[in-house]
Amino acid sequence: MIKIIVDCFGGDHCPEAPVEGALAALSANPDLYVILTGDEAILGQALEGKTYDTSRLEIVHAPEVIGCDEKPTDVVRLKRNSSMMKAIILLRDRDDIAAMVSTGSTGALVTGALVRLGRIPGVIRPAFCPILPTMDGGIVGICDSGANVEVTSAHLRQFAIMASLYLENVYGVRKPRTALLNVGKEAEKGDDVRRETYALLRQTPSVNFVGNMESRDLLSGSYDVVVADGFSGNVLVKTTEGTALELLKKLKKEIFCRTIYKLGALLMKKMFADMKAFMNYQNYGGSVLLGTSKVVVKGHGSSKAVAVEKCIEQAYRMEVSGLSAKIESEIAQYEHYED
Amino acid sequence: MIKIIVDCFGGDHCPEAPVEGALAALSANPDLYVILTGDEAILGQALEGKTYDTSRLEIVHAPEVIGCDEKPTDVVRLKRNSSMMKAIILLRDRDDIAAMVSTGSTGALVTGALVRLGRIPGVIRPAFCPILPTMDGGIVGICDSGANVEVTSAHLRQFAIMASLYLENVYGVRKPRTALLNVGKEAEKGDDVRRETYALLRQTPSVNFVGNMESRDLLSGSYDVVVADGFSGNVLVKTTEGTALELLKKLKKEIFCRTIYKLGALLMKKMFADMKAFMNYQNYGGSVLLGTSKVVVKGHGSSKAVAVEKCIEQAYRMEVSGLSAKIESEIAQYEHYED
Repeated sequence: MIKIIVDCFGGDHCPEAPVEGALAALSANPDLYVILTGDEAILGQALEGKTYDTSRLEIVHAPEVIGCDEKPTDVVRLKRNSSMMKAIILLRDRDDIAAMVSTGSTGALVTGALVRLGRIPGVIRPAFCPILPTMDGGIVGICDSGANVEVTSAHLRQFAIMASLYLENVYGVRKPRTALLNVGKEAEKGDDVRRETYALLRQTPSVNFVGNMESRDLLSGSYDVVVADGFSGNVLVKTTEGTALELLKKLKKEIFCRTIYKLGALLMKKMFADMKAFMNYQNYGGSVLLGTSKVVVKGHGSSKAVAVEKCIEQAYRMEVSGLSAKIESEIAQYEHYED
Repeated sequence: MIKIIVDCFGGDHCPEAPVEGALAALSANPDLYVILTGDEAILGQALEGKTYDTSRLEIVHAPEVIGCDEKPTDVVRLKRNSSMMKAIILLRDRDDIAAMVSTGSTGALVTGALVRLGRIPGVIRPAFCPILPTMDGGIVGICDSGANVEVTSAHLRQFAIMASLYLENVYGVRKPRTALLNVGKEAEKGDDVRRETYALLRQTPSVNFVGNMESRDLLSGSYDVVVADGFSGNVLVKTTEGTALELLKKLKKEIFCRTIYKLGALLMKKMFADMKAFMNYQNYGGSVLLGTSKVVVKGHGSSKAVAVEKCIEQAYRMEVSGLSAKIESEIAQYEHYED
């Protein structure tokens, strides 16, 4: 049995989306067991009338609410009975639990995971690795995308190792083609951190390093893993999502301007629906936090039930793949400098 | 008479695109005078049979060729008779010349402009400011987008001042809403440079500072100027362009998969053409280098004649607007630290 905690408060559609996502994942995976954290009474209501295997679902009462403006460090220190902090502490303390999923505050999740849960031995900094679809039907993982706004080349090398193992073991990508996000393809481009990382990655047999990548090539299908500091990685991911969404919105608006366009769009209805699904980043699961001692998956704040279900399945697959042990043994091959 | 130099070698469509762009700009602006730099014989051939006012066009022979792999510093030092370096030196030495346009190597242009041309008094670092279209029909300027991969808060404040003046004086945007690119909207987000810049910009009356911007909101129309370090600004601009292009490509591919889609697309032909023109970044001119002692406009390497023409017109408008003097007087109000 794989036990996964679902933090049921924090996202935009709480607790409905996490609860329904958890029930869907339960029915799809006979050896899954879920633990819901949050206000017991509200969760009880949300489960009322639903059909599910009660022997594989547990509620842990965590009534405290995290405010929007609360500092991550304050949340970690003061809100131990919030649904998120309770989940992190349970994950740390109970050996039978493998992973957690949350759609709550990114800052609180990263700080909480670092302070309360801890890292895989040897890992300097955990990093996010969201997945985006590429135009040839494949996927690309971006690591880091926001957990570490300042990094060294030693961090970036570890991100490359962890993300390569993730794509290989959880998505079945053989020898992931791994690139370094930079302002140009040439080895000497970028700042000192980038040039050092370029040199380091060329001496890292665990990583199939293919050189620098310019951001305009992210969706081309030529790369499986892109390594970045959390600041520019965040810009990379959010700009891609934002541009795709804005263009889709504009297309829709234009179509409604003229009857002939509406007619044309009617003929292309299925194609537009497919494109929309393709560009809907909720269909690609959450952003996993690589390098924490147990599996943590962060879903988008706007996640609906299906997105939460995908996050749970991602956590499940990560646990089954034995990713953490693989990261530990691979990282141990290289000398790293603790910060 | 406004005199502008056009570097005729370096881009993908040279010398045809610069030559034809220059002739189009000449015919549209009766008080424009252009100086073409490059191999005299090749330029003479490219002009053969063309009709234009010969009293407003001059060729300056610059036969040396810049190789793809040459280091910017080597180009500046050793290739004084290349079309680009000749243009920079002419711009510096001849008082009658106002500006230059180039579609050549970005690195060589930035280094050459810094070393040979110099800065507006008070400006610490010149920075690029490309313009992108927003979804509501407006525009947004991003400064810096690649000239400075490492920056301080003093640099970022100057980028904000220069880009605001540019949008106001060259594009008529009143009190440009200026945001700082960051990983979240809250004041405490990002690294130390971002937090310092946030505080500095709140104390900069020359800038209408509206706070942090997340990259997914770039095209929303809520911002006129986005301030960034050259690394993440580069990621922001190139990801936007790349995502738009890749989506358009995918749309086209999908349409050709089924006859009914082709039929639908036929009805929407004009709309798709409009969308394509809207997303074609060549229609928005070049990336100007703000802060150099005279106007420098960098066109995309893939610029065709119409894009070069737009760059020349941009340079013309910048000169007419008296932007450089305005930047100098505005910058002088604040204490800056030379690097």
